Amino acid sequence: MASSDSKESAANNPGLQSTPDEATKGYFMQQTMLRIKDPKVSLDFYSRVLGMSLLKRIDVPELKFTLYFLGYEDVASAPRDPIDRTVWTFGKPATVELTHNWGTESDPDFKGYHNGNSDPRGFGHIGITVDDTRKACERFERLGVEFVKKPDDGKMKGIAFIKDPDGYWIEIFDLKTIGEVVRGWA
Amino acid sequence: MASSDSKESAANNPGLQSTPDEATKGYFMQQTMLRIKDPKVSLDFYSRVLGMSLLKRIDVPELKFTLYFLGYEDVASAPRDPIDRTVWTFGKPATVELTHNWGTESDPDFKGYHNGNSDPRGFGHIGITVDDTRKACERFERLGVEFVKKPDDGKMKGIAFIKDPDGYWIEIFDLKTIGEVVRGWA
Repeated sequence: MASSDSKESAANNPGLQSTPDEATKGYFMQQTMLRIKDPKVSLDFYSRVLGMSLLKRIDVPELKFTLYFLGYEDVASAPRDPIDRTVWTFGKPATVELTHNWGTESDPDFKGYHNGNSDPRGFGHIGITVDDTRKACERFERLGVEFVKKPDDGKMKGIAFIKDPDGYWIEIFDLKTIGEVVRGWA
Repeated sequence: MASSDSKESAANNPGLQSTPDEATKGYFMQQTMLRIKDPKVSLDFYSRVLGMSLLKRIDVPELKFTLYFLGYEDVASAPRDPIDRTVWTFGKPATVELTHNWGTESDPDFKGYHNGNSDPRGFGHIGITVDDTRKACERFERLGVEFVKKPDDGKMKGIAFIKDPDGYWIEIFDLKTIGEVVRGWA
């Protein structure tokens, strides 16, 4: 198959520009922001269950919120100076930014956040590549994580969806099996 | 300041586990999924305006949707074989997965997707590190991109928010200025 005939070619994808504008050189996708009800619960989940580290915490008392940036980085190499650590964090791709609006964790009237997968829909999920989907999901089960879809449920066997403490969906897949999982549609 | 006294220490962040479980070794944040109305418009935006490449396209006719994985990778190095290209794509961190449910682009009754920043809230935005926020925003203005916040608006001067074609927010910042932008809260 010639390159121009690939499913990903511009010829097959109206709107697609194949050559990135030089002005965008060096750009990278740094963060995905999700609002959370209770940082204690979410920090536990993202660090203990998913294995992320807290890269940076930013407190904004004037607006009564705190931002927690988490990701798969070795924080032992993070700068000690708080400003340098901000720059270090924003220089890392693929982080999750959890926004805590103060008080939601203890507000009996707080209804929780919307995960985007029921009306009105929009955002769907984040996805994490793991070493072994089934092994990871067995561990998640032992840890009491809630599942949307276990690896053997549904059509796409071999991928799973779990929920974070606010109900956001997290897709789980591995590189050993993903090629076969989506073979029929690739 | 001793390491244990840093804002990011476990002592200061109830719930946080400092040492990732060995079982999570190799995990990485691979994707953020957003539903889109019209791939032609979104592919144009993410490739031409933001400079991303189309890493992989997956068509699922049984469920009438197509997935477009975009990211800042050099697709010249992508495998030619479609299955290998799936594995290559899922091995890349920090991608955006755009989900197109067929027909929305021409459905006069389709109301559009929800960006999570008005009730019911949840997902907030994705964020892209650029070389120079002001230069990038001048280019976005020339290209007719809609802004939520220009770099000089509001309290946090030096960061911007733009909208993608479905109204999802995208934060724009650079490493030269982010340290100063959030200095007071770092």
